[in-house]
Amino acid sequence: MASSSYFLLVALFALASWKAIASDPILVNGFVCKNPMDVKAEDFFLAANLDMPRDTNVSKVGSNVTLINVMRIPGLNTLGISLARIDYAPLGENPPHTHPRATEILTVLEGTLYVGFVTSNPENKFLSKVLNKGDVFVFPEGLIHFQFNPNPYKPAVAIAALSSQNPGAITIANAVFGSKPAISDDVLAKAFQVEKNTVDWLQAQFWADNQN
Amino acid sequence: MASSSYFLLVALFALASWKAIASDPILVNGFVCKNPMDVKAEDFFLAANLDMPRDTNVSKVGSNVTLINVMRIPGLNTLGISLARIDYAPLGENPPHTHPRATEILTVLEGTLYVGFVTSNPENKFLSKVLNKGDVFVFPEGLIHFQFNPNPYKPAVAIAALSSQNPGAITIANAVFGSKPAISDDVLAKAFQVEKNTVDWLQAQFWADNQN
Amino acid sequence: MASSSYFLLVALFALASWKAIASDPILVNGFVCKNPMDVKAEDFFLAANLDMPRDTNVSKVGSNVTLINVMRIPGLNTLGISLARIDYAPLGENPPHTHPRATEILTVLEGTLYVGFVTSNPENKFLSKVLNKGDVFVFPEGLIHFQFNPNPYKPAVAIAALSSQNPGAITIANAVFGSKPAISDDVLAKAFQVEKNTVDWLQAQFWADNQN
Amino acid sequence: MASSSYFLLVALFALASWKAIASDPILVNGFVCKNPMDVKAEDFFLAANLDMPRDTNVSKVGSNVTLINVMRIPGLNTLGISLARIDYAPLGENPPHTHPRATEILTVLEGTLYVGFVTSNPENKFLSKVLNKGDVFVFPEGLIHFQFNPNPYKPAVAIAALSSQNPGAITIANAVFGSKPAISDDVLAKAFQVEKNTVDWLQAQFWADNQN
Amino acid sequence: MASSSYFLLVALFALASWKAIASDPILVNGFVCKNPMDVKAEDFFLAANLDMPRDTNVSKVGSNVTLINVMRIPGLNTLGISLARIDYAPLGENPPHTHPRATEILTVLEGTLYVGFVTSNPENKFLSKVLNKGDVFVFPEGLIHFQFNPNPYKPAVAIAALSSQNPGAITIANAVFGSKPAISDDVLAKAFQVEKNTVDWLQAQFWADNQN
Amino acid sequence: MASSSYFLLVALFALASWKAIASDPILVNGFVCKNPMDVKAEDFFLAANLDMPRDTNVSKVGSNVTLINVMRIPGLNTLGISLARIDYAPLGENPPHTHPRATEILTVLEGTLYVGFVTSNPENKFLSKVLNKGDVFVFPEGLIHFQFNPNPYKPAVAIAALSSQNPGAITIANAVFGSKPAISDDVLAKAFQVEKNTVDWLQAQFWADNQN
Repeated sequence: MASSSYFLLVALFALASWKAIASDPILVNGFVCKNPMDVKAEDFFLAANLDMPRDTNVSKVGSNVTLINVMRIPGLNTLGISLARIDYAPLGENPPHTHPRATEILTVLEGTLYVGFVTSNPENKFLSKVLNKGDVFVFPEGLIHFQFNPNPYKPAVAIAALSSQNPGAITIANAVFGSKPAISDDVLAKAFQVEKNTVDWLQAQFWADNQN
Repeated sequence: MASSSYFLLVALFALASWKAIASDPILVNGFVCKNPMDVKAEDFFLAANLDMPRDTNVSKVGSNVTLINVMRIPGLNTLGISLARIDYAPLGENPPHTHPRATEILTVLEGTLYVGFVTSNPENKFLSKVLNKGDVFVFPEGLIHFQFNPNPYKPAVAIAALSSQNPGAITIANAVFGSKPAISDDVLAKAFQVEKNTVDWLQAQFWADNQN
Repeated sequence: MASSSYFLLVALFALASWKAIASDPILVNGFVCKNPMDVKAEDFFLAANLDMPRDTNVSKVGSNVTLINVMRIPGLNTLGISLARIDYAPLGENPPHTHPRATEILTVLEGTLYVGFVTSNPENKFLSKVLNKGDVFVFPEGLIHFQFNPNPYKPAVAIAALSSQNPGAITIANAVFGSKPAISDDVLAKAFQVEKNTVDWLQAQFWADNQN
Repeated sequence: MASSSYFLLVALFALASWKAIASDPILVNGFVCKNPMDVKAEDFFLAANLDMPRDTNVSKVGSNVTLINVMRIPGLNTLGISLARIDYAPLGENPPHTHPRATEILTVLEGTLYVGFVTSNPENKFLSKVLNKGDVFVFPEGLIHFQFNPNPYKPAVAIAALSSQNPGAITIANAVFGSKPAISDDVLAKAFQVEKNTVDWLQAQFWADNQN
Repeated sequence: MASSSYFLLVALFALASWKAIASDPILVNGFVCKNPMDVKAEDFFLAANLDMPRDTNVSKVGSNVTLINVMRIPGLNTLGISLARIDYAPLGENPPHTHPRATEILTVLEGTLYVGFVTSNPENKFLSKVLNKGDVFVFPEGLIHFQFNPNPYKPAVAIAALSSQNPGAITIANAVFGSKPAISDDVLAKAFQVEKNTVDWLQAQFWADNQN
Repeated sequence: MASSSYFLLVALFALASWKAIASDPILVNGFVCKNPMDVKAEDFFLAANLDMPRDTNVSKVGSNVTLINVMRIPGLNTLGISLARIDYAPLGENPPHTHPRATEILTVLEGTLYVGFVTSNPENKFLSKVLNKGDVFVFPEGLIHFQFNPNPYKPAVAIAALSSQNPGAITIANAVFGSKPAISDDVLAKAFQVEKNTVDWLQAQFWADNQN
């Protein structure tokens, strides 16, 4: 029941009037689309507690991403935007990752962040910056980027917006060394120019991590 | 000089390599587009002080919107997203307005906000919600919406993201009654079903306001 | 039965061949999508009588909009265009409104029209023109615009095209003062810089209007 | 001078404020883009005389298309829509053609039209309809379609809207048999399953036509 | 059973996690969309034998197009690309046609091809080139184009990519003269500036061809 | 001279007629856009020798990618597609990488390839397949993927198409460990859960590689 109302999604065009075809739910992008007469403010709302600190011990890298996307707010369907709060432990990081379908714009609410992204081949230029409270930074769509809290004593907090209702995220280390099943160590050894047993050792780390 | 570097815009595709045609700047969307070899972190950065309270006395309605769009961060060009901090005085409001090219997702950082939007004709259904710190709400593209701080003693603060690097904003009262030049009072009297002198009086208000 | 065939929508891609998955109707954008073998000319046709005058007494503002969108012609689904005939009584108007998802291009078939639109903040520049028979004017997406028939004796007629199969329309006065339920008069009094009882009086007008 | 003002194009985003980079014109889609402070109503207007009959003797097929696109109204740039008036002599036709970048929606203002389009391979289904005054018909993007006036005594008139500011048009017979230079008759003879001298004769017709 | 798995389509967004609404399949673009947990490599794979020669006797024009689109690889859904192998008999051709929804980029694997396309009205400029093994050519979206093997003794082979998962194809001669039912010979005689009995004879050819 | 003609780019819309503004080149997406009267077949052509084997010794990983994009064929501008030939040495690979702006569809021309991609967080599911000559596989936009030639004696060849005229490529190992300047080893050590000196050693490898 709870999970059913959780997925009562509402598309933008639902805001114009039409008559229902039948009693079956209408789907857009695979989510239920409501008759505009039945749209409720709750479809566009989430009591997300984005003001509250998150536990950064949930990951080995010392960060916690709270993403508010179309899975959390049905009314975002087709609207092309989402929001996230990111908490960083002292020396914690949101490790190198990409969003396959979104650009990200981030502002620092608390603490300090060392951030950066790498441009495409062949330059692979690394652009980085130390951000203080109130600073804003942009990570272009599909590029590898990270945020790192360089302060050994104080946590940091950021708010980020993403240009998709379902931006996706690919954490590089996890996808490369922790995929299920594992990528062949022949492939990874050659790609990273290391011995196969180094790859095997890395893969063991990430498998363990993901199984928690 | 300052204004020139202010407009050194960088498009996403600039991140792939190409050789410059000539010494003239390359424009995309009317902004300068840099050779990817010349891209700097500063093109994607702004020391926006988004953590700092803004003066809400600048407007008669008791609010102040700090928008970080492509005019402020050149690297946003073509990337389809922007960010804003909104400060609300006690009983202040961000009055009814639309963004012609963007959906907005907002979270409350401080205080309480009464927010809402109105759906299209013919329903013109008003969906509203009282948001507390940490709550999230979505205003779909092109719909009339507002935020109001119902607390007579405490200010409020929100962060909003918009799904365009140049979302635009049309404050309904200002556009309708404060345009330059004024819309004919025949047109507005009939549209709002009031006497022409009521329209004239309203227009006088907004002209004054805009001339400050 | 009638309402069922009314919603037998046909998407463009339906024009390429595929086999049906099952006996259930296939939905695109929430509308039924037909097997291309079953597409009929009627799916792309409407006997809309767009040559016939409409009754402009149906609204207090003296106009009548006949919109031919995807709800009227199923075959428009996914094709991004719609058409409208607009009739204006002497001194009638199509009052200030926006289309959240479309640009409009209009030509005058009969009579004269005073038309205009207002640009975004902060300029709120009002661009207007008197159009005679055969003149063409463009209202950019999401901007507030209107048409007014300045002739006290003769009606006017226009044909308008919109860049969406479901453009939506938001009549400013109705959405602001006639929404259901009403927007708080605190919010509107401050936005329009009037007394609350002025707002209450305006809201009473529009509620009555909409209940007809 | 005339041709210069003819190309003073104004993009939608020009409606938001920015400062000019320099004194050189800013181009979007290859057209000049104005500073929003300089936008004029004339940029969105054309005295196109769309109410006036056109001469249908200009072509051998007895029709005349008056297209109002971005080349005629600079303000249409980036807005994705255009408008056309089409005049048909008795027994005249707008011969089989495609719009590579637009869907078309057409309504009959005067007379009667026999219209149709053909779906993609492998069905090549021909959908047709006789339209009377006031009827509406849709020609999906990229499909071959035509309008024919079956009345031997009376002309016909239609208004059509297209979902692109620059829809393009490819008249099949002219493109196939009247291209400059000509397509090899080997290719066309095999494609149309006719003798080469039939192709040569057809090509001679169209070359002559185009040289007028 | 076979045809059911044939249509188990997988959309890109399926690659992000969500919970199934119910036991009914979720449709996107009219195709089944899988839960990301159930995605298999087979959804993105086809043993298409694109290295193997095709029989070019299947058509009168001496060519055979093997198109790998979303109907053949479900995982292409929403991804905007498809691939084709084209075999040409000696003196065979892929006759003049358009893709209503795609640009094509082609490379020659074996033999020689004389290729070309015609630009829009009014220029109808014919751009052509003789391609040798390894050459690449581009046919822009919606334009009429062809490939012809000028060698009377040797076959040719090309690989082409198209910018749509369902590009569609309209063979001009078949759509114009072989549609079902036939286009009126009045319309075609005037369009092609030939006698009606020439049209009738052409139509008889193509009807016969299509009925095989 | 050579580099000038190299950048004479031609946009799709150039195929419709317009008059030149002036003698200055018109830019679209930062590339020169030609007057449609001046378009030549050469703008859409490249003698790319895609049938010829490439030297796979140019990289340590034993592969060579020949990409035909808008930098190589000006006429591809705005058309959303590109093509590549990929050569693999025995046991060579195209190492894990992403295309930030494109989906890829690949077919094997010679030899055997072991290919795969990893889905987004949190599943990071690895989907892989051994492809033989003539098989086709799809790598969805933005996902990490690779191809590996498992045969120790024979090379392999593939043709791939990408859904962008400028897809971009990010080789994971090079971007993470070989960026210029290097990403902080604090960040990478935590992300990959290794010692900093392991990171330093990896970075040394890739710096060397890139300096060749």
